[in-house]
Amino acid sequence: MTDSTTPIRFVTGNPHKVDEVRAALDRPIEQVTFDYPEIQADTIEAVAEAGAREAYNHLGGDHPLIVEDSGLRIDALGGFPGPYSSYIEGTLGIERVWHLTEREDDRTASFVSVIAYIADDDVITFTGRVTGTIVAPRGRAGFGYDPIFEVDGRTLAERTTAEKNELSHRGQAIASFATWLDDQSR
Amino acid sequence: MTDSTTPIRFVTGNPHKVDEVRAALDRPIEQVTFDYPEIQADTIEAVAEAGAREAYNHLGGDHPLIVEDSGLRIDALGGFPGPYSSYIEGTLGIERVWHLTEREDDRTASFVSVIAYIADDDVITFTGRVTGTIVAPRGRAGFGYDPIFEVDGRTLAERTTAEKNELSHRGQAIASFATWLDDQSR
Repeated sequence: MTDSTTPIRFVTGNPHKVDEVRAALDRPIEQVTFDYPEIQADTIEAVAEAGAREAYNHLGGDHPLIVEDSGLRIDALGGFPGPYSSYIEGTLGIERVWHLTEREDDRTASFVSVIAYIADDDVITFTGRVTGTIVAPRGRAGFGYDPIFEVDGRTLAERTTAEKNELSHRGQAIASFATWLDDQSR
Repeated sequence: MTDSTTPIRFVTGNPHKVDEVRAALDRPIEQVTFDYPEIQADTIEAVAEAGAREAYNHLGGDHPLIVEDSGLRIDALGGFPGPYSSYIEGTLGIERVWHLTEREDDRTASFVSVIAYIADDDVITFTGRVTGTIVAPRGRAGFGYDPIFEVDGRTLAERTTAEKNELSHRGQAIASFATWLDDQSR
């Protein structure tokens, strides 16, 4: 068991994600850059869980830690591209992902973010989700799949960063982790 | 260094692959079923290499071992589905892979098989490749991507197993491994 002053390690190369977690949590957060291998699995949850175990074993289990993994799931395509979102973006590209989805009646998709927390060998995952629709690319802001992901009539690439953050799948995952952590220390 | 009577472990759940290797090699082959985690990587070679190291570390490095990994690479799609061939087959399905490729001028693809051999911490990989063309599904034999992969006017699903084996990407990888192994013991 760890008390509420023990720092939580966040294994990530991305300082913006660390800021986001720091702002939401009442606990010291220590960024650790360690490039843990991501396994092949059918779900983003499974990839994050294995990553957390890998990092925990490698770094030594004296501090609890979190990892975050995210991706796009298209319902009619069995959750594709899911855990392989970044590989698919780099090989097929988002235009082809649109053409694949264009043939389907149901174009519902979700952006999913998973935080996996490990302490004392137990892993718990927290999932955030934003639901939208796959459309032909529109807009110039953002990155990745933003131009083909529409929520309430606008793609994520047609929003400012602040507007996009209000919809954040990652923000939701962080918030549910923060609530759980807070309950633990009562 | 191992001599030519030391068994080589083949980490696989598939006894047919073991038979294929036994038939080609002048060395005792011992099948080991261990479900090593496959990492996410851009190439089939990298996945096989990491799998060989993982299995070697797990099983104890007293016997040399091999793993085999294979997949389909579509040239115009940046090597997609590559290391994720089986995930993509299960989520998108081969009909959608055909529709994706149908939009491209160049429909060249390869079936690739990689054998990764590890002994004394060094990994060597051997690659076999069959080049063909992606077409609309035809034929009922075989499995996986066979119905959309055409060589010399017929898809792999329009061939008998014996005819298909003559084209085998795995057979080529095994043959180049056998040649190398033979050279080592001279």
